[in-house]
Amino acid sequence: MTAYRKELDILLSMCASLHEKSTSPKLINKEQFPPIFTFEGLAGSGKSTQIKLVTEKLEQEYGKPAYLEVPNHSGVAKVLRTLYQDQKNYTKLQEEVPWLNPLFVMVDLYTKLQQITEEGYNYIFMSRGLFSTLYYNLEAFERAGNTPKEAWDEIYFLCTEFIRPKATIFLDIPIETALLRIEQRNRLPKRESDTEEGLQRSLKSFQMIFEQFSGEVPIHYVSGVGAEMDVTKRICNEIKPYLRGIK
Amino acid sequence: MTAYRKELDILLSMCASLHEKSTSPKLINKEQFPPIFTFEGLAGSGKSTQIKLVTEKLEQEYGKPAYLEVPNHSGVAKVLRTLYQDQKNYTKLQEEVPWLNPLFVMVDLYTKLQQITEEGYNYIFMSRGLFSTLYYNLEAFERAGNTPKEAWDEIYFLCTEFIRPKATIFLDIPIETALLRIEQRNRLPKRESDTEEGLQRSLKSFQMIFEQFSGEVPIHYVSGVGAEMDVTKRICNEIKPYLRGIK
Repeated sequence: MTAYRKELDILLSMCASLHEKSTSPKLINKEQFPPIFTFEGLAGSGKSTQIKLVTEKLEQEYGKPAYLEVPNHSGVAKVLRTLYQDQKNYTKLQEEVPWLNPLFVMVDLYTKLQQITEEGYNYIFMSRGLFSTLYYNLEAFERAGNTPKEAWDEIYFLCTEFIRPKATIFLDIPIETALLRIEQRNRLPKRESDTEEGLQRSLKSFQMIFEQFSGEVPIHYVSGVGAEMDVTKRICNEIKPYLRGIK
Repeated sequence: MTAYRKELDILLSMCASLHEKSTSPKLINKEQFPPIFTFEGLAGSGKSTQIKLVTEKLEQEYGKPAYLEVPNHSGVAKVLRTLYQDQKNYTKLQEEVPWLNPLFVMVDLYTKLQQITEEGYNYIFMSRGLFSTLYYNLEAFERAGNTPKEAWDEIYFLCTEFIRPKATIFLDIPIETALLRIEQRNRLPKRESDTEEGLQRSLKSFQMIFEQFSGEVPIHYVSGVGAEMDVTKRICNEIKPYLRGIK
Protein backbone atom coordinates (compact mmCIF):
# COMPACT_ATOMS: atom_id res chain seq x y z
CA MET A 1 0.00 0.00 0.00
CA THR A 2 1.28 3.47 -0.86
CA ALA A 3 2.20 5.76 2.04
CA TYR A 4 -0.43 8.32 1.10
CA ARG A 5 -3.15 5.70 1.17
CA LYS A 6 -2.36 4.89 4.79
CA GLU A 7 -2.75 8.56 5.65
CA LEU A 8 -5.93 8.86 3.62
CA ASP A 9 -7.42 5.82 5.35
CA ILE A 10 -6.61 7.34 8.73
CA LEU A 11 -8.23 10.61 7.69
CA LEU A 12 -11.36 8.83 6.45
CA SER A 13 -11.55 6.74 9.58
CA MET A 14 -11.14 9.73 11.90
CA CYS A 15 -13.65 11.81 9.99
CA ALA A 16 -16.15 8.93 10.02
CA SER A 17 -15.85 8.79 13.83
CA LEU A 18 -16.25 12.54 14.12
CA HIS A 19 -19.19 12.49 11.74
CA GLU A 20 -20.90 9.87 13.87
CA LYS A 21 -20.41 11.97 17.00
CA SER A 22 -21.40 15.23 15.33
CA THR A 23 -24.77 16.78 16.02
CA SER A 24 -24.78 18.39 12.56
CA PRO A 25 -27.04 17.26 9.72
CA LYS A 26 -26.02 13.88 8.41
CA LEU A 27 -24.83 12.75 4.99
CA ILE A 28 -25.03 14.96 1.92
CA ASN A 29 -28.14 14.23 -0.08
CA LYS A 30 -27.05 14.59 -3.68
CA GLU A 31 -30.68 14.61 -4.85
CA GLN A 32 -31.35 17.95 -3.20
CA PHE A 33 -29.25 19.97 -5.66
CA PRO A 34 -30.45 21.39 -9.00
CA PRO A 35 -29.19 19.59 -12.13
CA ILE A 36 -25.66 20.54 -13.18
CA PHE A 37 -24.45 20.88 -16.76
CA THR A 38 -20.68 20.89 -17.02
CA PHE A 39 -18.71 22.37 -19.89
CA GLU A 40 -15.44 20.67 -20.68
CA GLY A 41 -12.99 21.14 -23.51
CA LEU A 42 -9.42 22.04 -24.39
CA ALA A 43 -8.00 25.45 -23.52
CA GLY A 44 -9.43 27.88 -26.08
CA SER A 45 -12.52 25.77 -26.80
CA GLY A 46 -14.78 28.60 -25.63
CA LYS A 47 -16.16 27.25 -22.35
CA SER A 48 -16.52 30.60 -20.53
CA THR A 49 -17.75 32.44 -23.62
CA GLN A 50 -20.34 29.80 -24.43
CA ILE A 51 -21.58 29.48 -20.85
CA LYS A 52 -22.31 33.22 -20.98
CA LEU A 53 -24.05 33.02 -24.38
CA VAL A 54 -26.05 29.89 -23.57
CA THR A 55 -27.15 31.46 -20.26
CA GLU A 56 -28.45 34.53 -22.12
CA LYS A 57 -30.30 32.36 -24.61
CA LEU A 58 -31.95 30.09 -22.06
CA GLU A 59 -32.69 32.33 -19.08
CA GLN A 60 -35.92 33.77 -20.40
CA GLU A 61 -37.53 30.39 -20.92
CA TYR A 62 -35.99 28.41 -18.06
CA GLY A 63 -34.81 31.01 -15.55
CA LYS A 64 -31.24 32.11 -14.91
CA PRO A 65 -28.87 29.24 -14.25
CA ALA A 66 -26.29 29.50 -11.47
CA TYR A 67 -22.69 29.68 -12.61
CA LEU A 68 -20.18 27.51 -10.82
CA GLU A 69 -16.45 27.07 -11.00
CA VAL A 70 -14.14 25.21 -8.62
CA PRO A 71 -12.13 25.97 -6.57
CA ASN A 72 -14.35 28.82 -5.44
CA HIS A 73 -14.15 31.08 -2.38
CA SER A 74 -14.38 28.58 0.45
CA GLY A 75 -11.67 28.10 3.07
CA VAL A 76 -10.46 24.86 1.52
CA ALA A 77 -10.25 26.60 -1.87
CA LYS A 78 -7.93 29.17 -0.27
CA VAL A 79 -5.80 26.37 1.14
CA LEU A 80 -5.46 24.90 -2.36
CA ARG A 81 -4.61 28.27 -3.87
CA THR A 82 -1.95 28.89 -1.23
CA LEU A 83 -0.41 25.53 -2.06
CA TYR A 84 -0.49 26.27 -5.82
CA GLN A 85 1.56 29.42 -5.35
CA ASP A 86 4.83 27.52 -5.37
CA GLN A 87 4.19 25.24 -8.36
CA LYS A 88 7.43 23.33 -7.93
CA ASN A 89 6.73 22.51 -4.30
CA TYR A 90 3.09 21.72 -5.14
CA THR A 91 4.08 19.17 -7.77
CA LYS A 92 6.21 17.37 -5.19
CA LEU A 93 3.53 17.71 -2.52
CA GLN A 94 0.94 16.17 -4.84
CA GLU A 95 2.89 12.91 -4.86
CA GLU A 96 2.58 12.74 -1.07
CA VAL A 97 -1.07 13.78 -0.83
CA PRO A 98 -2.60 13.15 -4.26
CA TRP A 99 -6.04 12.88 -2.61
CA LEU A 100 -5.92 16.43 -1.21
CA ASN A 101 -6.96 18.32 -4.33
CA PRO A 102 -9.93 16.08 -5.30
CA LEU A 103 -11.16 15.95 -1.70
CA PHE A 104 -10.95 19.69 -1.11
CA VAL A 105 -12.41 20.48 -4.53
CA MET A 106 -15.41 18.34 -3.57
CA VAL A 107 -15.81 20.14 -0.22
CA ASP A 108 -15.59 23.44 -2.05
CA LEU A 109 -18.16 22.27 -4.60
CA TYR A 110 -20.72 21.12 -2.03
CA THR A 111 -20.27 24.33 -0.03
CA LYS A 112 -21.14 26.29 -3.16
CA LEU A 113 -23.95 23.89 -4.13
CA GLN A 114 -25.64 24.35 -0.75
CA GLN A 115 -25.51 28.10 -1.23
CA ILE A 116 -26.85 27.92 -4.81
CA THR A 117 -29.68 25.65 -3.71
CA GLU A 118 -30.65 28.05 -0.90
CA GLU A 119 -30.65 30.88 -3.42
CA GLY A 120 -33.31 29.04 -5.41
CA TYR A 121 -31.61 28.37 -8.74
CA ASN A 122 -33.19 25.69 -10.91
CA TYR A 123 -30.15 24.54 -12.83
CA ILE A 124 -26.42 25.08 -12.86
CA PHE A 125 -23.75 25.65 -15.50
CA MET A 126 -20.31 24.66 -14.45
CA SER A 127 -17.02 25.31 -16.16
CA ARG A 128 -15.05 22.08 -15.86
CA GLY A 129 -15.92 19.87 -12.88
CA LEU A 130 -15.80 16.11 -12.33
CA PHE A 131 -13.91 15.25 -15.50
CA SER A 132 -11.33 18.01 -15.23
CA THR A 133 -10.75 17.06 -11.60
CA LEU A 134 -10.08 13.50 -12.65
CA TYR A 135 -7.92 14.66 -15.53
CA TYR A 136 -5.81 17.11 -13.53
CA ASN A 137 -5.13 14.73 -10.66
CA LEU A 138 -4.83 11.33 -12.29
CA GLU A 139 -1.16 11.79 -13.13
CA ALA A 140 -0.32 12.66 -9.52
CA PHE A 141 -1.70 9.30 -8.39
CA GLU A 142 0.66 7.64 -10.85
CA ARG A 143 3.62 9.68 -9.68
CA ALA A 144 2.71 8.63 -6.12
CA GLY A 145 3.70 5.08 -7.00
CA ASN A 146 0.63 3.51 -8.61
CA THR A 147 0.29 1.73 -11.93
CA PRO A 148 -2.04 3.58 -14.37
CA LYS A 149 -4.84 1.11 -13.48
CA GLU A 150 -4.32 1.56 -9.72
CA ALA A 151 -4.12 5.33 -10.13
CA TRP A 152 -7.44 5.32 -11.91
CA ASP A 153 -9.08 3.11 -9.29
CA GLU A 154 -7.81 5.35 -6.49
CA ILE A 155 -9.04 8.61 -7.94
CA TYR A 156 -12.28 7.03 -9.14
CA PHE A 157 -12.91 5.82 -5.59
CA LEU A 158 -12.36 9.32 -4.18
CA CYS A 159 -14.61 10.83 -6.85
CA THR A 160 -17.51 8.52 -6.03
CA GLU A 161 -18.47 11.44 -3.76
CA PHE A 162 -18.21 13.96 -6.61
CA ILE A 163 -21.71 14.92 -7.73
CA ARG A 164 -22.44 13.66 -11.26
CA PRO A 165 -23.45 16.21 -13.86
CA LYS A 166 -26.85 15.75 -15.49
CA ALA A 167 -24.93 16.01 -18.77
CA THR A 168 -21.58 17.23 -20.03
CA ILE A 169 -21.00 19.44 -23.04
CA PHE A 170 -17.62 18.74 -24.56
CA LEU A 171 -16.65 21.66 -26.76
CA ASP A 172 -14.85 19.91 -29.56
CA ILE A 173 -12.23 21.86 -31.50
CA PRO A 174 -9.27 20.73 -33.60
CA ILE A 175 -5.91 21.05 -31.89
CA GLU A 176 -4.78 23.62 -34.47
CA THR A 177 -7.74 25.82 -33.54
CA ALA A 178 -6.91 25.48 -29.83
CA LEU A 179 -3.28 26.46 -30.51
CA LEU A 180 -4.36 29.48 -32.55
CA ARG A 181 -6.77 30.69 -29.86
CA ILE A 182 -4.22 30.14 -27.09
CA GLU A 183 -1.74 32.19 -29.14
CA GLN A 184 -4.24 35.03 -29.53
CA ARG A 185 -5.13 34.94 -25.85
CA ASN A 186 -1.41 35.05 -25.00
CA ARG A 187 -1.81 34.27 -21.29
CA LEU A 188 1.47 34.10 -19.46
CA PRO A 189 3.21 32.04 -18.21
CA LYS A 190 2.78 29.51 -21.00
CA ARG A 191 1.71 26.18 -19.60
CA GLU A 192 3.09 22.84 -20.78
CA SER A 193 -0.52 21.73 -21.34
CA ASP A 194 -0.98 24.52 -23.90
CA THR A 195 1.56 23.12 -26.36
CA GLU A 196 0.57 20.90 -29.28
CA GLU A 197 1.81 17.81 -27.46
CA GLY A 198 0.09 18.84 -24.25
CA LEU A 199 -3.20 19.37 -26.03
CA GLN A 200 -2.97 16.01 -27.74
CA ARG A 201 -2.33 14.28 -24.42
CA SER A 202 -5.16 16.23 -22.87
CA LEU A 203 -7.60 15.17 -25.60
CA LYS A 204 -6.60 11.50 -25.28
CA SER A 205 -6.98 11.66 -21.54
CA PHE A 206 -10.47 13.15 -21.75
CA GLN A 207 -11.54 10.47 -24.21
CA MET A 208 -10.28 7.75 -21.87
CA ILE A 209 -12.13 9.30 -18.92
CA PHE A 210 -15.35 9.74 -20.88
CA GLU A 211 -15.26 6.07 -21.86
CA GLN A 212 -15.08 5.10 -18.19
CA PHE A 213 -18.23 7.12 -17.54
CA SER A 214 -20.23 6.02 -20.58
CA GLY A 215 -23.57 4.93 -19.23
CA GLU A 216 -23.13 7.02 -16.08
CA VAL A 217 -22.98 10.55 -17.52
CA PRO A 218 -24.22 11.56 -21.01
CA ILE A 219 -21.40 13.32 -22.87
CA HIS A 220 -22.44 15.59 -25.72
CA TYR A 221 -19.69 16.40 -28.21
CA VAL A 222 -20.50 19.79 -29.70
CA SER A 223 -18.36 21.34 -32.39
CA GLY A 224 -16.83 24.54 -31.06
CA VAL A 225 -15.73 25.89 -34.47
CA GLY A 226 -17.62 28.37 -36.61
CA ALA A 227 -19.62 31.44 -35.62
CA GLU A 228 -20.15 31.84 -31.87
CA MET A 229 -23.93 32.02 -32.21
CA ASP A 230 -23.99 28.76 -34.18
CA VAL A 231 -22.05 27.03 -31.42
CA THR A 232 -24.47 28.48 -28.87
CA LYS A 233 -27.43 27.13 -30.84
CA ARG A 234 -25.86 23.68 -31.05
CA ILE A 235 -25.28 23.60 -27.28
CA CYS A 236 -28.82 24.77 -26.53
CA ASN A 237 -30.18 21.98 -28.69
CA GLU A 238 -28.34 19.46 -26.53
CA ILE A 239 -29.33 20.98 -23.21
CA LYS A 240 -32.99 21.82 -23.84
CA PRO A 241 -34.33 18.27 -23.65
CA TYR A 242 -32.99 18.05 -20.08
CA LEU A 243 -34.67 21.28 -19.07
CA ARG A 244 -38.23 20.23 -19.96
CA GLY A 245 -40.37 20.59 -16.89
CA ILE A 246 -37.91 22.88 -15.15
CA LYS A 247 -39.42 26.04 -13.64
CA MET B 1 -23.29 28.44 12.12
CA THR B 2 -19.81 29.65 11.13
CA ALA B 3 -18.81 29.25 7.47
CA TYR B 4 -15.93 26.94 8.31
CA ARG B 5 -18.24 24.60 10.21
CA LYS B 6 -20.37 24.08 7.11
CA GLU B 7 -17.25 23.10 5.21
CA LEU B 8 -16.05 20.86 8.00
CA ASP B 9 -19.42 19.11 8.17
CA ILE B 10 -19.30 18.51 4.43
CA LEU B 11 -15.79 17.10 4.72
CA LEU B 12 -16.80 14.80 7.58
CA SER B 13 -19.89 13.67 5.73
CA MET B 14 -17.99 12.94 2.51
CA CYS B 15 -15.20 11.14 4.32
CA ALA B 16 -17.74 9.06 6.25
CA SER B 17 -19.31 7.95 2.94
CA LEU B 18 -15.91 7.15 1.48
CA HIS B 19 -14.89 5.30 4.62
CA GLU B 20 -18.00 3.17 4.39
CA LYS B 21 -17.24 2.30 0.75
CA SER B 22 -13.55 1.70 1.37
CA THR B 23 -12.16 -1.81 1.44
CA SER B 24 -9.39 -0.72 3.81
CA PRO B 25 -9.25 -1.68 7.48
CA LYS B 26 -11.95 0.05 9.46
CA LEU B 27 -11.82 2.47 12.37
CA ILE B 28 -8.64 3.22 14.26
CA ASN B 29 -8.37 1.11 17.39
CA LYS B 30 -6.78 3.40 19.93
CA GLU B 31 -6.13 0.45 22.26
CA GLN B 32 -3.59 -1.04 19.87
CA PHE B 33 -0.95 1.62 20.49
CA PRO B 34 1.68 1.59 23.26
CA PRO B 35 1.11 4.06 26.14
CA ILE B 36 2.16 7.63 25.40
CA PHE B 37 3.73 10.02 27.87
CA THR B 38 3.62 13.62 26.71
CA PHE B 39 5.95 16.36 27.88
CA GLU B 40 4.46 19.82 27.98
CA GLY B 41 5.80 23.09 29.31
CA LEU B 42 6.78 26.63 28.43
CA ALA B 43 9.52 27.33 25.93
CA GLY B 44 12.78 26.73 27.75
CA SER B 45 11.30 24.31 30.27
CA GLY B 46 13.60 21.55 29.05
CA LYS B 47 11.23 19.19 27.27
CA SER B 48 13.67 17.91 24.63
CA THR B 49 16.59 17.72 27.05
CA GLN B 50 14.61 15.83 29.65
CA ILE B 51 13.06 13.42 27.16
CA LYS B 52 16.61 12.48 26.18
CA LEU B 53 17.78 12.11 29.79
CA VAL B 54 14.70 10.22 30.98
CA THR B 55 15.01 7.87 27.98
CA GLU B 56 18.62 7.07 28.93
CA LYS B 57 17.63 6.45 32.51
CA LEU B 58 14.69 4.16 31.79
CA GLU B 59 15.69 2.23 28.70
CA GLN B 60 17.73 -0.41 30.48
CA GLU B 61 14.88 -1.43 32.76
CA TYR B 62 11.89 -0.87 30.48
CA GLY B 63 13.29 -0.89 26.94
CA LYS B 64 13.85 2.08 24.66
CA PRO B 65 10.81 4.29 24.30
CA ALA B 66 9.85 5.65 20.88
CA TYR B 67 10.24 9.40 20.45
CA LEU B 68 7.41 11.27 18.79
CA GLU B 69 6.86 14.83 17.75
CA VAL B 70 4.11 16.26 15.51
CA PRO B 71 3.94 17.33 12.75
CA ASN B 72 6.30 14.61 11.58
CA HIS B 73 7.27 13.47 8.07
CA SER B 74 3.90 12.48 6.65
CA GLY B 75 2.35 14.10 3.58
CA VAL B 76 -0.16 16.06 5.63
CA ALA B 77 2.69 17.33 7.83
CA LYS B 78 4.35 18.68 4.69
CA VAL B 79 1.11 20.38 3.70
CA LEU B 80 1.02 22.08 7.10
CA ARG B 81 4.65 23.13 6.87
CA THR B 82 4.09 24.59 3.40
CA LEU B 83 1.19 26.62 4.77
CA TYR B 84 3.27 27.82 7.75
CA GLN B 85 5.90 29.30 5.44
CA ASP B 86 3.96 32.50 4.94
CA GLN B 87 2.98 33.20 8.56
CA LYS B 88 0.84 36.20 7.70
CA ASN B 89 -1.21 34.31 5.14
CA TYR B 90 -1.40 31.31 7.49
CA THR B 91 -2.87 33.39 10.29
CA LYS B 92 -5.62 34.58 7.96
CA LEU B 93 -6.12 31.10 6.53
CA GLN B 94 -6.54 29.67 10.04
CA GLU B 95 -9.68 31.75 10.51
CA GLU B 96 -11.20 30.11 7.46
CA VAL B 97 -10.12 26.55 8.21
CA PRO B 98 -9.36 26.43 11.95
CA TRP B 99 -10.00 22.67 11.90
CA LEU B 100 -7.24 21.95 9.37
CA ASN B 101 -4.28 21.97 11.74
CA PRO B 102 -5.82 19.76 14.47
CA LEU B 103 -7.21 17.32 11.90
CA PHE B 104 -3.97 16.99 9.95
CA VAL B 105 -1.88 16.80 13.13
CA MET B 106 -4.05 13.85 14.18
CA VAL B 107 -3.60 12.12 10.82
CA ASP B 108 0.13 12.70 11.12
CA LEU B 109 0.13 11.34 14.65
CA TYR B 110 -1.73 8.13 13.82
CA THR B 111 0.48 7.55 10.77
CA LYS B 112 3.51 7.69 13.04
CA LEU B 113 1.81 5.65 15.78
CA GLN B 114 1.08 2.82 13.36
CA GLN B 115 4.72 2.78 12.35
CA ILE B 116 5.96 2.85 15.96
CA THR B 117 3.61 0.03 16.89
CA GLU B 118 4.85 -2.10 13.99
CA GLU B 119 8.42 -1.44 15.10
CA GLY B 120 7.61 -3.01 18.45
CA TYR B 121 8.12 -0.18 20.92
CA ASN B 122 6.53 -0.63 24.35
CA TYR B 123 5.99 2.99 25.29
CA ILE B 124 6.30 6.42 23.75
CA PHE B 125 7.66 9.79 24.79
CA MET B 126 6.12 12.70 22.98
CA SER B 127 7.17 16.33 23.01
CA ARG B 128 3.96 18.31 23.19
CA GLY B 129 0.83 16.63 21.77
CA LEU B 130 -2.84 16.86 22.64
CA PHE B 131 -2.57 19.84 24.97
CA SER B 132 -0.26 21.90 22.77
CA THR B 133 -2.53 21.21 19.80
CA LEU B 134 -5.49 22.51 21.76
CA TYR B 135 -3.46 25.45 23.00
CA TYR B 136 -2.06 26.49 19.62
CA ASN B 137 -5.39 26.27 17.78
CA LEU B 138 -7.94 27.44 20.30
CA GLU B 139 -7.42 31.09 19.50
CA ALA B 140 -7.99 30.49 15.76
CA PHE B 141 -11.45 29.09 16.56
CA GLU B 142 -12.21 32.33 18.40
CA ARG B 143 -10.92 34.47 15.55
CA ALA B 144 -13.16 32.43 13.22
CA GLY B 145 -16.18 33.97 14.91
CA ASN B 146 -16.85 31.84 17.99
CA THR B 147 -17.25 32.89 21.62
CA PRO B 148 -14.52 31.45 23.88
CA LYS B 149 -16.97 28.75 25.04
CA GLU B 150 -17.98 27.83 21.48
CA ALA B 151 -14.34 27.84 20.37
CA TRP B 152 -13.49 25.38 23.14
CA ASP B 153 -16.42 23.11 22.30
CA GLU B 154 -15.45 23.08 18.61
CA ILE B 155 -11.82 22.18 19.14
CA TYR B 156 -12.65 19.73 21.93
CA PHE B 157 -15.06 17.99 19.55
CA LEU B 158 -12.35 17.67 16.89
CA CYS B 159 -9.84 16.43 19.43
CA THR B 160 -12.11 13.63 20.65
CA GLU B 161 -10.18 11.67 17.99
CA PHE B 162 -6.81 12.73 19.42
CA ILE B 163 -5.30 9.82 21.32
CA ARG B 164 -5.13 10.53 25.05
CA PRO B 165 -1.73 10.30 26.73
CA LYS B 166 -1.34 7.80 29.55
CA ALA B 167 -0.02 10.73 31.55
CA THR B 168 1.40 14.19 30.94
CA ILE B 169 4.53 15.63 32.51
CA PHE B 170 4.24 19.38 32.81
CA LEU B 171 7.72 20.82 33.27
CA ASP B 172 7.02 23.65 35.63
CA ILE B 173 9.40 26.61 35.64
CA PRO B 174 8.93 30.22 36.75
CA ILE B 175 8.40 32.68 33.94
CA GLU B 176 11.67 34.45 34.80
CA THR B 177 13.54 31.18 34.27
CA ALA B 178 11.80 30.64 30.93
CA LEU B 179 12.75 34.17 29.82
CA LEU B 180 16.35 33.64 30.84
CA ARG B 181 16.63 30.33 29.00
CA ILE B 182 14.94 31.75 25.89
CA GLU B 183 17.45 34.63 25.98
CA GLN B 184 20.39 32.21 26.21
CA ARG B 185 19.01 30.09 23.41
CA ASN B 186 18.55 33.21 21.27
CA ARG B 187 16.48 31.58 18.54
CA LEU B 188 15.44 33.99 15.80
CA PRO B 189 12.93 35.31 14.84
CA LYS B 190 11.68 36.13 18.32
CA ARG B 191 8.14 34.91 18.75
CA GLU B 192 5.42 36.89 20.49
CA SER B 193 4.81 33.84 22.70
CA ASP B 194 8.36 34.09 24.02
CA THR B 195 7.83 37.45 25.72
CA GLU B 196 6.90 37.76 29.40
CA GLU B 197 3.28 38.51 28.52
CA GLY B 198 3.15 35.69 26.01
CA LEU B 199 4.52 33.22 28.54
CA GLN B 200 2.02 34.35 31.16
CA ARG B 201 -0.85 33.88 28.72
CA SER B 202 0.55 30.53 27.70
CA LEU B 203 0.72 29.35 31.33
CA LYS B 204 -2.85 30.46 32.03
CA SER B 205 -4.06 28.76 28.89
CA PHE B 206 -2.40 25.47 29.81
CA GLN B 207 -3.92 25.59 33.28
CA MET B 208 -7.38 26.13 31.81
CA ILE B 209 -6.91 23.23 29.40
CA PHE B 210 -5.58 20.91 32.11
CA GLU B 211 -8.64 21.67 34.25
CA GLN B 212 -10.90 20.58 31.40
CA PHE B 213 -9.09 17.27 31.28
CA SER B 214 -8.86 16.60 35.00
CA GLY B 215 -10.17 13.11 35.47
CA GLU B 216 -9.43 12.19 31.86
CA VAL B 217 -5.63 12.54 31.75
CA PRO B 218 -3.34 12.58 34.82
CA ILE B 219 -1.18 15.71 34.73
CA HIS B 220 2.05 15.59 36.73
CA TYR B 221 3.56 18.96 37.55
CA VAL B 222 7.29 18.47 37.87
CA SER B 223 9.60 21.29 38.82
CA GLY B 224 11.98 21.97 35.95
CA VAL B 225 14.45 24.07 37.96
CA GLY B 226 17.66 22.89 39.57
CA ALA B 227 20.23 20.41 38.34
CA GLU B 228 19.25 18.52 35.19
CA MET B 229 19.78 15.13 36.81
CA ASP B 230 17.49 16.07 39.69
CA VAL B 231 14.75 17.02 37.26
CA THR B 232 15.28 13.73 35.44
CA LYS B 233 14.94 11.82 38.71
CA ARG B 234 11.72 13.64 39.56
CA ILE B 235 10.22 12.82 36.16
CA CYS B 236 11.25 9.17 36.39
CA ASN B 237 9.53 8.93 39.77
CA GLU B 238 6.29 10.08 38.18
CA ILE B 239 6.51 7.82 35.13
CA LYS B 240 7.76 4.59 36.70
CA PRO B 241 4.46 3.58 38.35
CA TYR B 242 2.85 3.55 34.89
CA LEU B 243 5.56 1.35 33.46
CA ARG B 244 5.14 -1.53 35.93
CA GLY B 245 4.45 -4.66 33.98
CA ILE B 246 5.87 -3.24 30.77
CA LYS B 247 8.36 -5.57 29.09
